[in-house]
Amino acid sequence: MQEIIQKDNNTVFIGQKEPMTYVMAVVTQFNSSNNSVVIKARGKAISKAVDVAEIVRHRFINGLTVTNIKIDTEEVQREEGTMKISAIEITLTKE
Amino acid sequence: MQEIIQKDNNTVFIGQKEPMTYVMAVVTQFNSSNNSVVIKARGKAISKAVDVAEIVRHRFINGLTVTNIKIDTEEVQREEGTMKISAIEITLTKE
Repeated sequence: MQEIIQKDNNTVFIGQKEPMTYVMAVVTQFNSSNNSVVIKARGKAISKAVDVAEIVRHRFINGLTVTNIKIDTEEVQREEGTMKISAIEITLTKE
Repeated sequence: MQEIIQKDNNTVFIGQKEPMTYVMAVVTQFNSSNNSVVIKARGKAISKAVDVAEIVRHRFINGLTVTNIKIDTEEVQREEGTMKISAIEITLTKE
């Protein structure tokens, strides 16, 4: 799972894999004694980020609260030039 | 635009049309003297809802704040039975 948990220890970046891959990554973070996990996504993966947060809360870990949701616009460098893309950060916290 | 603005006057439901259709619906709501507009979406349309909110804030109306974002799981009746689907509500408010 190394490739989907970058930099910050308690952050899970949503990419192109199946939602359950990221659900497991979030659960693993909570089981490694993190009280708070941040789920980040950009573009079309934003819907998947919400699915992942909801699946973890409703099916895997009781007593999780959505403590913060932030939306933003990020600039991404592509061959064609700079592109603006929407982003989301969802923070789940153990009570 | 009647079909995309249902029930609540200040709510815009994101469906399968182009993002700019919904951007214009949100702008119209603010121009009809609403101080606050709620953008709602389910499933794959969630990413589009975030795009719409970000486009309105950055390109159309200055001084808008994201005052609330809520994620949830809704039950939808389909022919195959009951399905669970993620949903989002983004509230934009004029300062």
